[in-house]
Amino acid sequence: MLAELKGLNEECGVFGIWGHEDAAQITYYGLHSLQHRGQEGAGIVEMNDDQLTCVKGEGLVTEVFTTEKMKNLSGRAAIGHVRYATAGGGGYENVQPLLFNFQSGAMALAHNGNLVNANQLKSQLEAQGSIFQTSSDTEVLAHLIRRGGFATHKNRLKNALSMLKGAYAFLIMTETEMMVALDPHGLRPLSIGKLGDAYVVASETCALDIVGAKFVRDVEPGELVVINDDGITSEYFSMSSQRAMCTMEYIYFARPDSNIEGINVHTARKNLGKQLAKEVTIEADVVTGVPDSSISVAIGYAEATGMPYELGLIKNRYVGRTFIQPSQSLREQGVKMKLSAVRGVVEGKRVVMVDDSIVRGTTSKRIVTMLKEAGAKEVHVLISSPPIKNPCFYGIDTSTTSELIASENSVEEIRQLIGADSLTFLSVEGTVEGIGRSFDGKTHGACMACFTGNYPTEIYEETREGYLKC
Amino acid sequence: MLAELKGLNEECGVFGIWGHEDAAQITYYGLHSLQHRGQEGAGIVEMNDDQLTCVKGEGLVTEVFTTEKMKNLSGRAAIGHVRYATAGGGGYENVQPLLFNFQSGAMALAHNGNLVNANQLKSQLEAQGSIFQTSSDTEVLAHLIRRGGFATHKNRLKNALSMLKGAYAFLIMTETEMMVALDPHGLRPLSIGKLGDAYVVASETCALDIVGAKFVRDVEPGELVVINDDGITSEYFSMSSQRAMCTMEYIYFARPDSNIEGINVHTARKNLGKQLAKEVTIEADVVTGVPDSSISVAIGYAEATGMPYELGLIKNRYVGRTFIQPSQSLREQGVKMKLSAVRGVVEGKRVVMVDDSIVRGTTSKRIVTMLKEAGAKEVHVLISSPPIKNPCFYGIDTSTTSELIASENSVEEIRQLIGADSLTFLSVEGTVEGIGRSFDGKTHGACMACFTGNYPTEIYEETREGYLKC
Amino acid sequence: MLAELKGLNEECGVFGIWGHEDAAQITYYGLHSLQHRGQEGAGIVEMNDDQLTCVKGEGLVTEVFTTEKMKNLSGRAAIGHVRYATAGGGGYENVQPLLFNFQSGAMALAHNGNLVNANQLKSQLEAQGSIFQTSSDTEVLAHLIRRGGFATHKNRLKNALSMLKGAYAFLIMTETEMMVALDPHGLRPLSIGKLGDAYVVASETCALDIVGAKFVRDVEPGELVVINDDGITSEYFSMSSQRAMCTMEYIYFARPDSNIEGINVHTARKNLGKQLAKEVTIEADVVTGVPDSSISVAIGYAEATGMPYELGLIKNRYVGRTFIQPSQSLREQGVKMKLSAVRGVVEGKRVVMVDDSIVRGTTSKRIVTMLKEAGAKEVHVLISSPPIKNPCFYGIDTSTTSELIASENSVEEIRQLIGADSLTFLSVEGTVEGIGRSFDGKTHGACMACFTGNYPTEIYEETREGYLKC
Amino acid sequence: MLAELKGLNEECGVFGIWGHEDAAQITYYGLHSLQHRGQEGAGIVEMNDDQLTCVKGEGLVTEVFTTEKMKNLSGRAAIGHVRYATAGGGGYENVQPLLFNFQSGAMALAHNGNLVNANQLKSQLEAQGSIFQTSSDTEVLAHLIRRGGFATHKNRLKNALSMLKGAYAFLIMTETEMMVALDPHGLRPLSIGKLGDAYVVASETCALDIVGAKFVRDVEPGELVVINDDGITSEYFSMSSQRAMCTMEYIYFARPDSNIEGINVHTARKNLGKQLAKEVTIEADVVTGVPDSSISVAIGYAEATGMPYELGLIKNRYVGRTFIQPSQSLREQGVKMKLSAVRGVVEGKRVVMVDDSIVRGTTSKRIVTMLKEAGAKEVHVLISSPPIKNPCFYGIDTSTTSELIASENSVEEIRQLIGADSLTFLSVEGTVEGIGRSFDGKTHGACMACFTGNYPTEIYEETREGYLKC
Repeated sequence: MLAELKGLNEECGVFGIWGHEDAAQITYYGLHSLQHRGQEGAGIVEMNDDQLTCVKGEGLVTEVFTTEKMKNLSGRAAIGHVRYATAGGGGYENVQPLLFNFQSGAMALAHNGNLVNANQLKSQLEAQGSIFQTSSDTEVLAHLIRRGGFATHKNRLKNALSMLKGAYAFLIMTETEMMVALDPHGLRPLSIGKLGDAYVVASETCALDIVGAKFVRDVEPGELVVINDDGITSEYFSMSSQRAMCTMEYIYFARPDSNIEGINVHTARKNLGKQLAKEVTIEADVVTGVPDSSISVAIGYAEATGMPYELGLIKNRYVGRTFIQPSQSLREQGVKMKLSAVRGVVEGKRVVMVDDSIVRGTTSKRIVTMLKEAGAKEVHVLISSPPIKNPCFYGIDTSTTSELIASENSVEEIRQLIGADSLTFLSVEGTVEGIGRSFDGKTHGACMACFTGNYPTEIYEETREGYLKC
Repeated sequence: MLAELKGLNEECGVFGIWGHEDAAQITYYGLHSLQHRGQEGAGIVEMNDDQLTCVKGEGLVTEVFTTEKMKNLSGRAAIGHVRYATAGGGGYENVQPLLFNFQSGAMALAHNGNLVNANQLKSQLEAQGSIFQTSSDTEVLAHLIRRGGFATHKNRLKNALSMLKGAYAFLIMTETEMMVALDPHGLRPLSIGKLGDAYVVASETCALDIVGAKFVRDVEPGELVVINDDGITSEYFSMSSQRAMCTMEYIYFARPDSNIEGINVHTARKNLGKQLAKEVTIEADVVTGVPDSSISVAIGYAEATGMPYELGLIKNRYVGRTFIQPSQSLREQGVKMKLSAVRGVVEGKRVVMVDDSIVRGTTSKRIVTMLKEAGAKEVHVLISSPPIKNPCFYGIDTSTTSELIASENSVEEIRQLIGADSLTFLSVEGTVEGIGRSFDGKTHGACMACFTGNYPTEIYEETREGYLKC
Repeated sequence: MLAELKGLNEECGVFGIWGHEDAAQITYYGLHSLQHRGQEGAGIVEMNDDQLTCVKGEGLVTEVFTTEKMKNLSGRAAIGHVRYATAGGGGYENVQPLLFNFQSGAMALAHNGNLVNANQLKSQLEAQGSIFQTSSDTEVLAHLIRRGGFATHKNRLKNALSMLKGAYAFLIMTETEMMVALDPHGLRPLSIGKLGDAYVVASETCALDIVGAKFVRDVEPGELVVINDDGITSEYFSMSSQRAMCTMEYIYFARPDSNIEGINVHTARKNLGKQLAKEVTIEADVVTGVPDSSISVAIGYAEATGMPYELGLIKNRYVGRTFIQPSQSLREQGVKMKLSAVRGVVEGKRVVMVDDSIVRGTTSKRIVTMLKEAGAKEVHVLISSPPIKNPCFYGIDTSTTSELIASENSVEEIRQLIGADSLTFLSVEGTVEGIGRSFDGKTHGACMACFTGNYPTEIYEETREGYLKC
Repeated sequence: MLAELKGLNEECGVFGIWGHEDAAQITYYGLHSLQHRGQEGAGIVEMNDDQLTCVKGEGLVTEVFTTEKMKNLSGRAAIGHVRYATAGGGGYENVQPLLFNFQSGAMALAHNGNLVNANQLKSQLEAQGSIFQTSSDTEVLAHLIRRGGFATHKNRLKNALSMLKGAYAFLIMTETEMMVALDPHGLRPLSIGKLGDAYVVASETCALDIVGAKFVRDVEPGELVVINDDGITSEYFSMSSQRAMCTMEYIYFARPDSNIEGINVHTARKNLGKQLAKEVTIEADVVTGVPDSSISVAIGYAEATGMPYELGLIKNRYVGRTFIQPSQSLREQGVKMKLSAVRGVVEGKRVVMVDDSIVRGTTSKRIVTMLKEAGAKEVHVLISSPPIKNPCFYGIDTSTTSELIASENSVEEIRQLIGADSLTFLSVEGTVEGIGRSFDGKTHGACMACFTGNYPTEIYEETREGYLKC
């Protein structure tokens, strides 16, 4: 369902291109197609004539990059970033890519993910006199690189990466090369494409498609890819890599037209819907999905059951920071935000409402209420994932354990809390089956820590208490 | 499909409220939900302490109405407008509502539709010394009202309306009342709702829903409704009214959650899809709809045929005037605009592509090509309306006859031009059947002039040559 | 002294050019040099390829005309306007030039001055059905022109001008010519210059200088000048013209580098200072002037008396609408606005403070207090004009009679109210002598109505009660 | 004369306040009065509830600090900065104050002046792994403080200051105190005032006056002042302090209403004019000064010689980055920038033109030409300072030696180059005498290095080649 409705937010998307005369423009379109991964800030650093130049700002891609600002960017390489920021960690400084100028040259960094030991590393670095300009944990990597005693930039980078724990997809650009690094568990998606002779790297394949690039392959866990004017080379900086792709990418973060490790997201979601049809039988009149991410699931469920899919809920699009929020009093008078129920469709009907997940439960409750107020006789809630019982430390802004409704309530209790006539979560096995990923032992090939509590990396006590956002 | 892709644009939406302490705020949310009817300008005139104040500007609702500007509006009545403008007729002056200040009081006007005799009327008025500030035909009404010799405002208005030919839904506000007038054929939708004690009027019922208002009834053709502090009264200014609702409102203009004369738009579209299934049989693997308006049709078709509905095309959302358009060279390199084909879904498949209409054919051709480039083996195009052979003079920006591909080409010729493996238009009868409106003789209860050439009003030679936009 | 300090504000300046390829740019620089005549709005209408295009907005010249907006203006003729607006009459609509589009062509108007019978004319026109878009009296002229039955534009204009009473310097531009009209008393300055082959018209000669134009001559009272591609022609539309130039232009409105009817404004002010030295003898240590307009007067007085001129008061420049005003509490704590006394200069001294006029007296009181707080032992106030006892109806925003301190108080009473040790106004004769204009009978060649009550035109009862601003 | 005309630009002004509930507002007004010291960027860091918050941006004070941004600042301490930036060193990052957030707390820095060994220090720090975010040399101090091994913040600061060479007036703010440090030669002015119970520090006393603060004393060379809730304490971090106040502050940087070490700047300038009258006798008709800084000199010269002071040159005010510069072609056609000659005053006259200095000579040549084109019979140039033969390394943006006209040309050669009928520079002794400062040996109490080549600090070869701006 609507990410912004429930405090379950992806943090960041990255895009990079090396060797194309319209590098910054293409990065603009790429970032635009990744806008769903972060709406609070965006930036591009381009390389032109051995100079790195940064344009960034708070807001949407279309707000940050004006014609005025873009027209000065004409280099042949660029990296870009869209950012989701929690209240505390906002501000212009934290918008990425971060650009560092040294007497010996410049370096830009863009990061998707979250480090679980950022605070510890930062503390050590400050004790040695390092000054951090941002509160993002991305900057930690820059300081580790600069302090490394190794002779080459690549070795300093490998050394620095070896000290990081957590989830990260990094793009690093200097005047001479673009480096691409993925954490040893490959928690975040990252794909490589080709556009003519230029190499393109993006968080999702939809960004490759949108710019007309051909998909080449996904970046591997623990892999360091170097792209420069001589072409592309690769090596592994971690020996113990094992893929643990974030399941939530399939369930609702990624765009439906993206493929993650070869699996189309829309198709995966339809299959989750079909899987739901296998696991539960509901007597109802119409199926409706909570837009946008659950539409595919609802259609899959409708196909499998033969029940008609209807447009029972509609999203009220609004954009950017300029939308004026209704006051509490107006909301009480019935001014709708973001989502409305379509009376013409649900009135007098038994409705199956399909959603992708429940975090705090408040939104589900609101939607169930909305459907009933619009005349639905019954509302049966189907969730295309298991209950979220554990916080994520890898870049998804789930609240602390105590805010997760499923960590302290049974399914029946949740059903009562949200006011549904029935409530069904997809099983862990059904989820894996639906997505269609291999599934084995501890890491599953997919990270399902938020459902199972099996975290693929170490988690420190401090990590649990509070951690830096990307 | 995407209105903005094919030069088939709705012109304008209106919203009004009388008797609510948050009148301007509510109008803001109402206009926001009508944004699809016009993206190039928006305005609100509110009435506060016997004064009319106007806030308007070019751009989207969220761009025009800043917190800064809205905070000064605290009156208890307001009318608003969203506007689509052709290149020539843009400009701040033409953004509505138009506000006129006289020594004896003020008057604001908002208009959805198009007059077919505006030029003739304007020419007469200028010869008598009237000065027009705008190039919109809405202003003609103001001058007619002011020149009328009748004693009361209402009689002057009725007299003025009697001189207008064409399509119009007018909101007129003075310090003491709001007047609502619909042309004698009721070509444009216009509904009345109630929010507490306040009366609300809007182009579509989705705007009533969004602000929490209860639907009361549709405005009738030739009706003049007067709302003031004493309540609501109504009379007819035209004796020969006969409903000829614009069919295109159902086919693609209106929001799927709106009801037009009691018929839900999403449901009507699904039925158009089912009707298509009755009229043609296609051997194919997947059904996909061109977003947003044809999704419902595609789902209806899939339901009726049992073929799976898939997300084969995805819209790249962008908003407002700030999106930087790719250069021709970038477009040739494959940078996608507005729409992408999803390779993971269509590759190797026989695809049924459902769209709502074909105007010039260039967009259909682009989408068919896009699907084939993404690997579709066959592309069968189904159109949920008959061929558009005649221009619209009632407020829809169809090009002149010579630009309408169906006015000079057979279905088979169009199929070849757009490169489809097959092409099927819905029949006129099937369209009427699908929508579910009564159907009789000349005016059908619905205007289908763009398909049949039967215009419900006089059309002058001059009208055919060039006419003012709303 | 500082115009903005005392509610004594010039209303508007105009600039026009015909026959120059950089017409709009040059108008921009011309308006910039006339910025002191109006800071609340600015506009340019240019003529390009038989089309009139308008760029205008609220704020300073540098705020309104961005590079973005200016780059589209490349015509060979333009007229421009800077505007002072009272609270009520602000708003984008009222910013000039006003541009009118007719089916038969377009017309733009810019106006400096004020009509005393605008309300009467407007009332008649509205009764006949005319719709006014603005609350400025400039629009009255447009309607009078359009309603005139004469065959040519020039005759319609002459007929319309004959119905106006008051002060006006009009620039009127159509696709084929620029017309320049000055009221029969020539109350406002208006000069013609030449820049290469192009003709330039401006409210003050400083604007001619700034754009590199050579001064040709002043426009005569009652004269109508027509400039087009054939050159310049002139005729008189009023038979009974008699110059009554606004004295206040010399005393403080005009820029010191302008010449008005051959007299340099700085020189005139120095002479007013010398005249003060003839009319009064003060025992003091230093002379200081209230910036900007009284600096010249103070220097003239210092030269004549041998007393040293010192910088006892300094202006705190601020600009535009973006300056944040200190709260009342901050002002009480001593945060200075606009003007400070220089302690290092006035401490322990007997100070002669020279100012140009006293309107309400509140500012004079504030400055005297400021000087005393900075340590001045005595403050002797010299005013380089007679007491203002009567309101102006010709475009200067003096308050109503009851707000003019001199209309109800003797000089001694004013002295006590402002807390000065002595107060001297220049005599009417001294003012005329200082400025150096011929002086005869009723109109003096100069209008001194605010001092003497002798208005050069009819004044209606209604005029006295409230009137439209330019 | 106009600083911006000749590449002789002051770099920066600082303002700070501790212990006032309107701290940020007051800093706003203080910075506004220091705007002449830097127009390209401005910032405020305020301390509120143990948090430092920064608002900064490029442009003028009135452009950077909007009502919107200021309304969130309500702390009780603040420091602010206005900045002049050379082309290379611009950009948002470099706008001060710099704000650093550490895990252990925050620190803000504002700096007026220039370090001569910044590059050397930066090079050493980067070699140790420090990452610089800005290209300003101010950041060097932050890194030196953080790397220092001392126990207290004050001792770390003192240690860091001991490593700096050059000119600096620093304001440093943490959550608990404001520290004020002036270089051992006191090259830049810095004064302390009191506003109620709050302490105020500012680059010039005019900023104290404007906010209503009472002057307490100047900061001493080599002094470190600490202001916190317990009051004010002071100590010296350098044993070998000797005042060498920048003479150029008197000659043209400072505002005429400021006092620098007890000497009023306007008075000093008048005395420089009187001194010129002693050193040279000119036969001429009128005296005119190049605005703004030379007006006082010209008045002093006129007083001493009895020659009349006239307004022969007038400044065309323009503001901010939004002024559209005339094209070369427009400039050749005579469009004036910044300064015009007043024909009515200079025509047919022998003119004494007083200016404060000559850097490259191009501007002087332009003004002399302008006066002659306006009809001046003779132009005699008087300069109220000696020839500038040496670059400044202490924060004034003089060009390199080779660009200084006086470094390679005799006075007679300069006279010919600028086209004057005579040219007189004030002698070094006359300058000292005029300003009225004590004068002894090497450093004179005043720095006159640009005239004499006697630099009060070491100057490194590298310093001469290129150095960081403040």
